[in-house]
Amino acid sequence: MGPIKHKALLNVDLGEGFGNLKCGPDEELLPHIDIANVACGFHSGDPLIMMNTVRMCKEHNVKIGAHPGLPDLQGFGRREMKLQPEELTAITVYQVGSLKGFLDREGLPMNHVKPHGTLYGMMCRDFDVATAVMKGIPKGVPVFGLAGTNMEKAAKEVGVEFWAEMYGDVKYNTDGMLVIDRIKKPWKLEDVERHVEQQLTTESVTAVDGSNVHLPVKDYPISICCHSDSPGCVGIVKTTRAVCDKFNKEHGWS
Amino acid sequence: MGPIKHKALLNVDLGEGFGNLKCGPDEELLPHIDIANVACGFHSGDPLIMMNTVRMCKEHNVKIGAHPGLPDLQGFGRREMKLQPEELTAITVYQVGSLKGFLDREGLPMNHVKPHGTLYGMMCRDFDVATAVMKGIPKGVPVFGLAGTNMEKAAKEVGVEFWAEMYGDVKYNTDGMLVIDRIKKPWKLEDVERHVEQQLTTESVTAVDGSNVHLPVKDYPISICCHSDSPGCVGIVKTTRAVCDKFNKEHGWS
Amino acid sequence: MGPIKHKALLNVDLGEGFGNLKCGPDEELLPHIDIANVACGFHSGDPLIMMNTVRMCKEHNVKIGAHPGLPDLQGFGRREMKLQPEELTAITVYQVGSLKGFLDREGLPMNHVKPHGTLYGMMCRDFDVATAVMKGIPKGVPVFGLAGTNMEKAAKEVGVEFWAEMYGDVKYNTDGMLVIDRIKKPWKLEDVERHVEQQLTTESVTAVDGSNVHLPVKDYPISICCHSDSPGCVGIVKTTRAVCDKFNKEHGWS
Amino acid sequence: MGPIKHKALLNVDLGEGFGNLKCGPDEELLPHIDIANVACGFHSGDPLIMMNTVRMCKEHNVKIGAHPGLPDLQGFGRREMKLQPEELTAITVYQVGSLKGFLDREGLPMNHVKPHGTLYGMMCRDFDVATAVMKGIPKGVPVFGLAGTNMEKAAKEVGVEFWAEMYGDVKYNTDGMLVIDRIKKPWKLEDVERHVEQQLTTESVTAVDGSNVHLPVKDYPISICCHSDSPGCVGIVKTTRAVCDKFNKEHGWS
Repeated sequence: MGPIKHKALLNVDLGEGFGNLKCGPDEELLPHIDIANVACGFHSGDPLIMMNTVRMCKEHNVKIGAHPGLPDLQGFGRREMKLQPEELTAITVYQVGSLKGFLDREGLPMNHVKPHGTLYGMMCRDFDVATAVMKGIPKGVPVFGLAGTNMEKAAKEVGVEFWAEMYGDVKYNTDGMLVIDRIKKPWKLEDVERHVEQQLTTESVTAVDGSNVHLPVKDYPISICCHSDSPGCVGIVKTTRAVCDKFNKEHGWS
Repeated sequence: MGPIKHKALLNVDLGEGFGNLKCGPDEELLPHIDIANVACGFHSGDPLIMMNTVRMCKEHNVKIGAHPGLPDLQGFGRREMKLQPEELTAITVYQVGSLKGFLDREGLPMNHVKPHGTLYGMMCRDFDVATAVMKGIPKGVPVFGLAGTNMEKAAKEVGVEFWAEMYGDVKYNTDGMLVIDRIKKPWKLEDVERHVEQQLTTESVTAVDGSNVHLPVKDYPISICCHSDSPGCVGIVKTTRAVCDKFNKEHGWS
Repeated sequence: MGPIKHKALLNVDLGEGFGNLKCGPDEELLPHIDIANVACGFHSGDPLIMMNTVRMCKEHNVKIGAHPGLPDLQGFGRREMKLQPEELTAITVYQVGSLKGFLDREGLPMNHVKPHGTLYGMMCRDFDVATAVMKGIPKGVPVFGLAGTNMEKAAKEVGVEFWAEMYGDVKYNTDGMLVIDRIKKPWKLEDVERHVEQQLTTESVTAVDGSNVHLPVKDYPISICCHSDSPGCVGIVKTTRAVCDKFNKEHGWS
Repeated sequence: MGPIKHKALLNVDLGEGFGNLKCGPDEELLPHIDIANVACGFHSGDPLIMMNTVRMCKEHNVKIGAHPGLPDLQGFGRREMKLQPEELTAITVYQVGSLKGFLDREGLPMNHVKPHGTLYGMMCRDFDVATAVMKGIPKGVPVFGLAGTNMEKAAKEVGVEFWAEMYGDVKYNTDGMLVIDRIKKPWKLEDVERHVEQQLTTESVTAVDGSNVHLPVKDYPISICCHSDSPGCVGIVKTTRAVCDKFNKEHGWS
């Protein structure tokens, strides 16, 4: 098990407000990130927010991917819903297409697709769910996901390029799955630093039970994810940025 | 004032059900039409219905356009809403993009954009509204609209190709605007026949007050619109189809 | 096991259209039913439909109950969603309260609460879900449910009066649970007749696997449920009405 | 024109978050206010937020009224929509009923109804809109509104008790109507103080054009409204509270 073989990039979910209601401090985060996952109106976000978020990302040279979620604005895509496979495919096509409309208008490519919240978790756990979502991703667009789960397996099966994610502000269970808290707990910045550094340099992570979990990220391109709705997210993102920069510099990728 | 200079094509709004609730008998109408305007989930329609409607249109060689509406499922896009210009642009980009996702997947082109219901009516009456919507239409995609209104004017201004519509199952006011009934009244088929024939052969229509209204369709391509939620829509569509076929045959376009 | 000890009443879900889209032929069903379960806007229905449905029920002397569902208009409340207990309580209070607003205005009492679709099914299977919903039902208002399931158990626990339902147009599994088809299959009227008669006269039903399932309806008041969105629902309702009338007459309750 | 003849009370809109997204700092405002207008899920708010808001108000002995809005979550009820009169009545009955469900459960009375945002503005300008909404308010429940407008006129016509509002954080036009900014501008606290004091002590206000506008609050009970989504709302509310307390003390009402 050697070190990561690609430059570590930092992705953040953006545009997750709705109408008049704000979610995270998107403007403050943009200068520090490489990639944005833009909400597409199902778990949050709306057309006007999407249009503005795409413009802001363009100004900051931040790459843009679609962040499709379950059709549940009130639950912020964090309540499990059972959808038929064809519905999962359809909601993916719809949401990715809607964001592509804004990208096409700005002459920007779709960098990737990253499923949101419970949809992401359901894909990790359930191969059929993962497959149905993968079938909705346009040809040639990569997907971000958790290596070693059904997301990876389904991406391979359907023929979607896979990028492995690591998490800056989310803990792991001993089975390599993420610990999803309904109400997010604050992180100490030194814990964020250690958490990200460990994942990047050892391809493993200390799970909540203290065990060491191997992250089977293999030769995939890596992107570290932070959340714009975590308490103290600006500090978390800046800290993660610094760890990535240091790591990339040490590997001659900066 | 001479006759129409293009082949008369028949367009119908399809995919306007929502979830478990059906709107019109789409399957029965498809064999008789040339072009479908597919609802995009804002005034009606949902991702699964869109996916299925696109497939059915493909099977019947029916051309497909986006049918964006106001964000008002409960009102079926038939309640006037005041949106800022940038919101109007954004909801157009979003909805057209979402349908394009399904078309791309099937390798089909986007034939056109036809705004729905009250959005269409607002565009006819208000140049700023029309302009804002036109700005959301992708380059190279034509718009269907009512000639002689702000839709035509704004399309020209923004650089969107304009196709003129005539209506098989909607009456006109003396100012050339459409009469929108909340609950649609039934039509006698002989009235539909006369209504369509008059428009096609004379470029004019008898308004509800009995006056003769010129339809300034000039040299635009023409499409006759019928609605899948009109009472007796199958008969209306078949009748309109017959009038169009006769007209096209007489002009050597069949 | 003796016969039913209460008059058999016929209940139907009404007001399950949304905006311009109709669901069932409510007007045709009203003359034949005793009790309506009125949708409250979460799985279907909207304020205007509720207001009109309450008025129509009043005209036909049909008793009115609330029919709360999962917050999922697109899925018609038929997609499973995981909600926290307090959310389940809150969506019940909200929906029942909204219908009570219309009843208060007409001077009508709230006859009962009958949960809809997947919420009903989740309550049968999961005691915690059932308990959370029961906690949202106003004091003194009975609940309709499936005897022998967690609905009955939770109603008892929370102190909500329980009415047992039988189903005229739904089949049973061997464990006494209902068979929920996404797309409802048509029934032969003689099968409806036999199905209802068997349940009423024997307190048991032949499950889909041919086995005989006891219905532990005990001494509960009984209501037979038919659905306004079943294919051929007018015939089903009339047939069920006739079986109920015959049964009630035989027991001196007519 | 004499001074206000009732104790001045302070009302604030609360519970205007949606799902995971927060609106104002409700917890910080509650200790300083007399009355809360609780959003009912149409312009913002959801069942869980309503349940929690009602509980918090109860703990702080804050009186609770319903705050119904236009059915437009994305627009926060601040986009004008044309609804038929019966729809306006129905959305009022529905929303007020939904909140009453939570109040009944806590054994609390419905203090009043205060329409939200654009619905409020439409009622001020349009007698038919105001009348339709008034018809949806339960018997015996007062309405808060702007004196001298169609709200007052319609309340009288329909027989709804009227309470006059003054605004702590909104400016007035020369016709006595409110100036609604899409994005709210910050207030200096000394301006808030002068603004509220002037209204309370002189029954008039300096409009944005500098003219003096009489506030025809007559003998109505008065409530001063501040908004939880105004920038700096905690300071605004505390300042308004102090002005009210001083005024009430001077008039022997404290």
